[in-house]
Amino acid sequence: MTVTAPQGFRAAGVAAGLKSSGAPDVALVVNDGPQDNAAAVFTTNRFPAAPVQWSRQVLATGRLRAVVLNSGGANACTGPEGFSDTHATAEHTAAELGLGAVDVAVASTGLIGVRLPMDKLLPGVTDAAKALAADGGPDAARAIMTTDSVPKTTVVQRDGWSVGGMAKGAGMLAPSLATMLVVLTTDAAVDSATLQTALKGATGVSLERVDSDGCLSTNDTVVAMANGASGVTPGAAEVAEALTAAATDLAMQLLADAEGSTKDIAITVRNAATVGDALTAGRACARNNLLKTALFGNDPNWGRVLAAIGTTDAAFEPDRVDVTINGVTVCRGGAIGDPREGVDLTGRAITIDVDLRAGSEQATIWTNDLSIAYVHENSAYST
Amino acid sequence: MTVTAPQGFRAAGVAAGLKSSGAPDVALVVNDGPQDNAAAVFTTNRFPAAPVQWSRQVLATGRLRAVVLNSGGANACTGPEGFSDTHATAEHTAAELGLGAVDVAVASTGLIGVRLPMDKLLPGVTDAAKALAADGGPDAARAIMTTDSVPKTTVVQRDGWSVGGMAKGAGMLAPSLATMLVVLTTDAAVDSATLQTALKGATGVSLERVDSDGCLSTNDTVVAMANGASGVTPGAAEVAEALTAAATDLAMQLLADAEGSTKDIAITVRNAATVGDALTAGRACARNNLLKTALFGNDPNWGRVLAAIGTTDAAFEPDRVDVTINGVTVCRGGAIGDPREGVDLTGRAITIDVDLRAGSEQATIWTNDLSIAYVHENSAYST
Repeated sequence: MTVTAPQGFRAAGVAAGLKSSGAPDVALVVNDGPQDNAAAVFTTNRFPAAPVQWSRQVLATGRLRAVVLNSGGANACTGPEGFSDTHATAEHTAAELGLGAVDVAVASTGLIGVRLPMDKLLPGVTDAAKALAADGGPDAARAIMTTDSVPKTTVVQRDGWSVGGMAKGAGMLAPSLATMLVVLTTDAAVDSATLQTALKGATGVSLERVDSDGCLSTNDTVVAMANGASGVTPGAAEVAEALTAAATDLAMQLLADAEGSTKDIAITVRNAATVGDALTAGRACARNNLLKTALFGNDPNWGRVLAAIGTTDAAFEPDRVDVTINGVTVCRGGAIGDPREGVDLTGRAITIDVDLRAGSEQATIWTNDLSIAYVHENSAYST
Repeated sequence: MTVTAPQGFRAAGVAAGLKSSGAPDVALVVNDGPQDNAAAVFTTNRFPAAPVQWSRQVLATGRLRAVVLNSGGANACTGPEGFSDTHATAEHTAAELGLGAVDVAVASTGLIGVRLPMDKLLPGVTDAAKALAADGGPDAARAIMTTDSVPKTTVVQRDGWSVGGMAKGAGMLAPSLATMLVVLTTDAAVDSATLQTALKGATGVSLERVDSDGCLSTNDTVVAMANGASGVTPGAAEVAEALTAAATDLAMQLLADAEGSTKDIAITVRNAATVGDALTAGRACARNNLLKTALFGNDPNWGRVLAAIGTTDAAFEPDRVDVTINGVTVCRGGAIGDPREGVDLTGRAITIDVDLRAGSEQATIWTNDLSIAYVHENSAYST
């Protein structure tokens, strides 16, 4: 049931003709209240797409009644005209729903630098508004898919309340569409400030730690809405825990469905001086094309792990670093460890454990391999 | 004639059996004087290979009589034993040449994390010493090749003196071998300090601006030797100009022969507030897998240029940035410019011109596309 699993939400997904394939491409998620508290996290790219610029303003109020999403076009780098298109989309959605435009967030995904076909999008919004249903979550999840092979949805049940969610593609994951869009809903009663803190914390340890190719989208948007329809008011820690569970579930689904990927790689950096150091070292590995191609080739090339973290400023002594790949400590003290021939990389799951011996903090970054299929899909996207 | 084009240098390249193919794999370059001034630039990776650690100490003297180089093994992340191997190589080379070990630099390239087969390497050095010849430059250039399809050599003739050079692979270019090794020679009379300044400047605007995949090697080494055999003492500016010409020539050869590449891409960032900003923005493009796969697919996907520079802290206003690809200004003011269909990307050479309108500095970064062949070669390297 995805975003419509919690009480008081309706959703829809329709085909408006934005995608030449005729697949669903417009989704609508509506919060019927009673409360309309909301929170969001957006891309930090300095070229935020028009819908990000719009939604950032809307979400500044901490209130939201609806999110309209489209695939088939990112509406990024489209100038003032593109912003007008987003504004018109919000106005049209609001009119269909009897709301004000400021109650409506917009999210888009697709090719950058192309105007949206508004003559198709706006009728699509009208159709979506008519199709809104309390069991419409799965349709909405399908309508935001781009190169995703399956819809990504989640439901986290708690005592008398729940969190629902849907996601598409990935900002840095299935990135030919260069966007991760996520909508989370809950029927718990949560004020906006608590929701924002919980959402920031949840994405920080889940979606933001998935780094498939280091490419930061212009459109990444994660929106959370809380309506209190369950009548339950959980504590802040409970909200944070449930949102983290939902966001982590979606993040792992994004990882598993990343374009062209053949491996899910969890890079854990342990005994770092700071969490920041652990993240920096982990990301350096996740963004190292030589390591990622080696793993695609089932090659436990641990030298490329050291070469990657050797470019960072994380605190460590080079002759104290250990690297363990799928349980085999192939590098000890920055030098040759157990035989690399003992590492079995034939499965999809790979764990790389880097021990910096420089402190007591740790973090995990999730990434994928760099495959021939990745290059193929991303070289053929817009043409 | 490469490194033996200037007077007073001898070189050799022999097959010692380090490569299973039987191809040449040990090179020796000897400076017969009268002077032995030298300079070098090394990788900044925090896991410098054993030969880098050794050569950095040797070059601290500003003097050098010989460089011994091997392909077929990087001798990186091999611990104290690996350093002993490098030391033994320098000692053995020095003994063959009647020098001290401190007169001999060592450079290695190949797989990280594997010990060198010293029982093959040392006899190879003996053979190379016997084969030293005043016309041995081409043999040396061939012996340092790894996946290079052609040797890279250069000769820059000046009035009564010259600079010769050879290079292999690329630190960040043909990086499955993860190393760029360069030896430059000149028969000009140049003191060590002048040579170091000239070399640092020359590599800074050439070899260090080639960034094919952002992967920094553990072994990158650029050595320059000046012996004064020509009797000419050029001015510092003349030395800098000639070294820059030689290093640029080699850098462009590395770019053209990058593993699996189908495009040579020059990214020029203009009107930046600082050269640093221009380099940061250029490198962000050069390291963006989505842009590189798009260019492999002949797709002028300028949105990926903006998405890349949008992740940097370079000074610019997003609505003032222009992007021109192969002469077509596809993006104006951060929005849609001339039709992308007008861009012809079918040739090997691609120019991307980013105008930040934030100052008056500029810099060019050279890179390659991300191709299926790149993934194939780099996934199959060590196994």
